[in-house]
Amino acid sequence: MLPNSPLLKLFNIKYPIIQAGMVWVSGAKLAAASANAGCLGLIGAGSMKPDLLRSQIIKAKSLTKQSFGINLPLLYKDVEVQIEIALEQGIKIFFTSAGSPKKYTSFLKDKGCVVVHVCSTPEQALKCEQAGCDAVVAEGFEAGGHNGIDEITTMALIPQVIKELKIPVIAAGGIADGSQVAAAIALGASAVQMGTRFVCTHESSAHDNFKQMILQSKPGDTRLMMKNLVPVRLLKNKFFDAVEQLEKKSASKEELAQLLGKGRAKLGMLDGQLEDGELEIGQVCSMIRDLPTVQNCVDQLIHEYSLAVKRLS
Amino acid sequence: MLPNSPLLKLFNIKYPIIQAGMVWVSGAKLAAASANAGCLGLIGAGSMKPDLLRSQIIKAKSLTKQSFGINLPLLYKDVEVQIEIALEQGIKIFFTSAGSPKKYTSFLKDKGCVVVHVCSTPEQALKCEQAGCDAVVAEGFEAGGHNGIDEITTMALIPQVIKELKIPVIAAGGIADGSQVAAAIALGASAVQMGTRFVCTHESSAHDNFKQMILQSKPGDTRLMMKNLVPVRLLKNKFFDAVEQLEKKSASKEELAQLLGKGRAKLGMLDGQLEDGELEIGQVCSMIRDLPTVQNCVDQLIHEYSLAVKRLS
Repeated sequence: MLPNSPLLKLFNIKYPIIQAGMVWVSGAKLAAASANAGCLGLIGAGSMKPDLLRSQIIKAKSLTKQSFGINLPLLYKDVEVQIEIALEQGIKIFFTSAGSPKKYTSFLKDKGCVVVHVCSTPEQALKCEQAGCDAVVAEGFEAGGHNGIDEITTMALIPQVIKELKIPVIAAGGIADGSQVAAAIALGASAVQMGTRFVCTHESSAHDNFKQMILQSKPGDTRLMMKNLVPVRLLKNKFFDAVEQLEKKSASKEELAQLLGKGRAKLGMLDGQLEDGELEIGQVCSMIRDLPTVQNCVDQLIHEYSLAVKRLS
Repeated sequence: MLPNSPLLKLFNIKYPIIQAGMVWVSGAKLAAASANAGCLGLIGAGSMKPDLLRSQIIKAKSLTKQSFGINLPLLYKDVEVQIEIALEQGIKIFFTSAGSPKKYTSFLKDKGCVVVHVCSTPEQALKCEQAGCDAVVAEGFEAGGHNGIDEITTMALIPQVIKELKIPVIAAGGIADGSQVAAAIALGASAVQMGTRFVCTHESSAHDNFKQMILQSKPGDTRLMMKNLVPVRLLKNKFFDAVEQLEKKSASKEELAQLLGKGRAKLGMLDGQLEDGELEIGQVCSMIRDLPTVQNCVDQLIHEYSLAVKRLS
């Protein structure tokens, strides 16, 4: 029932659905399960030391015969080693973020790879196209994790990005069910990238405490915080309250960075320390009420998509 | 091409499109033109003294044989006089906002009126249903003017509101073209309410300076401000900068209220003082690049809607 898309061939996938590559929650198991379910699976390399990335890619290859990719934030010091390992392991699909698309796109394209960069404004999207990217992920304000500073929502963003670009646009932010997939396609997106929904699957490596907290979350339980440091959407907890207190006092970047410290996201999302950890999640967390396998999740999305399409005419 | 909706009969309209009732920009001319184009037109009563409201309703009746309604923020002191005048003039459709839906819904329903209340969370929406409203407008973070404090975007909000309610849901926020109308319907909305798009029509009473500034606006040129007083989405100008400066210093409610003063919105939106006035507008302002008649605007929306529907299967 889902429409044809130039990205199906480019990524060699059945459905125009991309499982976001996220820190701490999207390892080999999730990426392979997503690939096996007909989606593009992405290993979130951002939180992985080079050796772990290598072993996760090898593990994913043992779990699926389908292709998968990696998400690579460009701000870590190990990024060039990570690229080397991914290429050595035969990875052909790179989703890059948190840096300039000019930096590695040509290099990766020359190696025969597909390169997609994440952006949050039409202006950034145009820079991705000019850098030679095959597609962009345009991510709205409601998305989890790190976020743009202009606060443009998915509904407002996607048509404006599409108007500027010739390359395909992947919509992200606010997409957890099939009606939202249909809405993104109606806006002109060639595919969707979903994070929060895949965090709450059987195969995600998020700590069960974190998954259970998402299942209990209510609308309005996330907020975009640390806009003066690096904007990030957080689920409300004790750490969130501490950030809020600092921000109310107009804290400096340095004070925020000191509070954040190192390893907060791992503590919350992987270790399940729900009070002191940083819990990155999208606004749609309050829609998630089950922990299906990825296959069941995708089946459900396709079913909901077909119901949404029927509403339109 | 637009789908059937229970609201077509309820409002006696051809298309499930509602022209938002806004302060200073939606008087008799705009409401009548919207009604004549097959949409629901709303007179924005919020900025009108009782006598002006009466004369605007009389004028609108002279410009259209179709029914139209009024938008009534419940926070003004004249609200009961406004209701009396609207009833005396035969108004049967009331969109209420900025107050409790419990306050006047039963009274208006007893007079044979249709009552719709504006909300920004699923919890508020449920209260509207319980108060006896016929429908709700669920308005996302990207919307112009006054806004909820939970920052939930249209994409994330609509499916969650629909899940809670039995009555129809009207989507608002981030809707300026036909692809966004289609996206809202895909999300499950029974209709859309559009503000920013109708501000930039021939028949809107927004000052031409304001309209021209919208045509020049770029993505990211609005921001939700004054969250500690009454959240409002503003177009960036000198007044915006002054608000921002105060907020960076963690200003009190009183300081913000003092800066705002009285008549700021009229100064900007009606009088066209683009620096010192308050310019309320939605994130989609940067999509608006023309000033059509309402009829041409609606024709274009229907055309774009049909293109969007084709993308879906």
